[in-house]
Amino acid sequence: MRRPTIKDVAERAEVSLKTVSRVINDEPGVRARTREKVNQAIAALGYRPDPSARSLRSAQPYALGVVYDNPNPYYIIAVQNGVLSACRETGYGLQIHPCDASSPVLAADLIDLVQGARLAGLVLAPPMSERMELVNELVEQGIRLVRIVSASADPHDGAPCVWVDDRDAAYDITEHLIQLGHQRIGFLWGGTSHKSSSERYKGYAKALADYGIVEDETLVLPGDYSFDDGFRGARRLLSLPEPPTAIFGSNDEIAAGVLAAARSSGLNVPYDLSIAGFEDSPFSKQSWPPLTTASQATEAIARHAAYRLIAELRRDGNVDTHPNEGFSPVLVVRGSTAPPRPKA
Amino acid sequence: MRRPTIKDVAERAEVSLKTVSRVINDEPGVRARTREKVNQAIAALGYRPDPSARSLRSAQPYALGVVYDNPNPYYIIAVQNGVLSACRETGYGLQIHPCDASSPVLAADLIDLVQGARLAGLVLAPPMSERMELVNELVEQGIRLVRIVSASADPHDGAPCVWVDDRDAAYDITEHLIQLGHQRIGFLWGGTSHKSSSERYKGYAKALADYGIVEDETLVLPGDYSFDDGFRGARRLLSLPEPPTAIFGSNDEIAAGVLAAARSSGLNVPYDLSIAGFEDSPFSKQSWPPLTTASQATEAIARHAAYRLIAELRRDGNVDTHPNEGFSPVLVVRGSTAPPRPKA
Repeated sequence: MRRPTIKDVAERAEVSLKTVSRVINDEPGVRARTREKVNQAIAALGYRPDPSARSLRSAQPYALGVVYDNPNPYYIIAVQNGVLSACRETGYGLQIHPCDASSPVLAADLIDLVQGARLAGLVLAPPMSERMELVNELVEQGIRLVRIVSASADPHDGAPCVWVDDRDAAYDITEHLIQLGHQRIGFLWGGTSHKSSSERYKGYAKALADYGIVEDETLVLPGDYSFDDGFRGARRLLSLPEPPTAIFGSNDEIAAGVLAAARSSGLNVPYDLSIAGFEDSPFSKQSWPPLTTASQATEAIARHAAYRLIAELRRDGNVDTHPNEGFSPVLVVRGSTAPPRPKA
Repeated sequence: MRRPTIKDVAERAEVSLKTVSRVINDEPGVRARTREKVNQAIAALGYRPDPSARSLRSAQPYALGVVYDNPNPYYIIAVQNGVLSACRETGYGLQIHPCDASSPVLAADLIDLVQGARLAGLVLAPPMSERMELVNELVEQGIRLVRIVSASADPHDGAPCVWVDDRDAAYDITEHLIQLGHQRIGFLWGGTSHKSSSERYKGYAKALADYGIVEDETLVLPGDYSFDDGFRGARRLLSLPEPPTAIFGSNDEIAAGVLAAARSSGLNVPYDLSIAGFEDSPFSKQSWPPLTTASQATEAIARHAAYRLIAELRRDGNVDTHPNEGFSPVLVVRGSTAPPRPKA
């Protein structure tokens, strides 16, 4: 099976090779109708730009880097896949760069990475994306980037981003628990280095306040986005003189730890204890009972972030077609939440 | 904090810059004692080779690509992290390339990838690594690669690899179930495109034969390495007139599906049904009960594969220091397996 070439596209669209090349590389100087004809020919032939030809032509850097520090494989793979799908449609490669967010030489490392690998730009995942001193240093060094951040609105801080409204979704989860009849609702943090965790806490606190429930500090515990911290936190909450009837783990890994702690204490979920997570990871559907959670479209978020960056790289700042954009995770109710048992 | 430079290393080791450069790039012509002095200086100063300087010097390709098609995020992240740790120690970058193993143009795509991104070489994960027609085509095109394959011994097929002895570990799991007293042991396949699945089946079948248990074909079902196929397969096995007392899912995702099916049928695991998986993924420790499984050191396997490739790239075929190597997963017994209930 011969792969269609740029020449086939040019013949079918009845335009020059140069014009096809311009359309593929999203360069200016092509009329809208011509551009459409070329895109139709590309679609009809199933043509894919050849990244090797592209690199030979331009001798420009043409790979993006994804930078993350997160112990959650489901989240990382979703981010990688989202960025990759944008890279493939536009002919970019993808390098991955897991890193230690607490490293004092992180900025220098990332600058090395971009220059050494001649990357076109970086997609920064949390928590690196939320460190403005790091972001500013990279921008000052001329590094093109886009960030995935947790925020309830466009931060308008000068650096491109897509934002995820964790606060709003955490409000919905807490409200769901309150409407089931819960008053004592535990909350397990996911690490202060992640802004998403404080945003989720704010949503929790606001829902309690809106429903006139006084927050009990003993029900709110620090920790990381991990199964182990969910397990430990739940054990502590369940050993309180007056334990909570529901626990909101600020991600699904934490909620899975809460579920294991409940089971090892002989509790029947959801009747003795309701549990909610956040993220809608595959195992939130596969646990028993499956977890009530918030579904965040991580792959779509990452894809949009990559397009945001690529638009900026190609159009030199004219990013009207791909502005900053916000995403709101959606409440998903499953079997791990139910009304509390009536008091005896 | 100033980062140590190659000059600092040369001064401390009292050698020339050129010598340090040779040691870093693993080039010949440096005496063992001098090499050791340089390595000590590197360690003492915490010096890391600067990939940007390296690329400017050599203008050679210096990123590896990891090629995979696997739905299991834990496996992929472990492979990525293993390859990355070798890349970082040797100054290579890493591009990732998930792909469709069934694509008819896969070889052309991979050749495009290597040439377009000027990759130094590829690490092929299963199942691509096990398609000899694909591997041979890549090798013929001059692409340097290493494969991670499932085999019970070095395949000696001319292309570099590390091999994982799935058969041996599957034998151990099956033997463990037999020694607990199980005679009717179900087996759920993980897809015929993965050689690991047929190797695991062979280990299962050999253990049954060695213990004089006649294999019952109705207890062996096809499927993929997925939770859903584990769930479906278990439902079928449990609805047999004489259901199995134990089920061996050929990976942990399958075993998790079996666990959910058992629970949704009201069975008490392990007393009504023993369940074993394969891989020792994080959730095999986190499920309730935790899963008996085989622990495969995926990250170490991938790291060795990357070193195998890098040794080949640098020494032009002299890979005595990093030969093909085999890894054997190890049986891990947890709470999901127990003796069968005595017959009433």
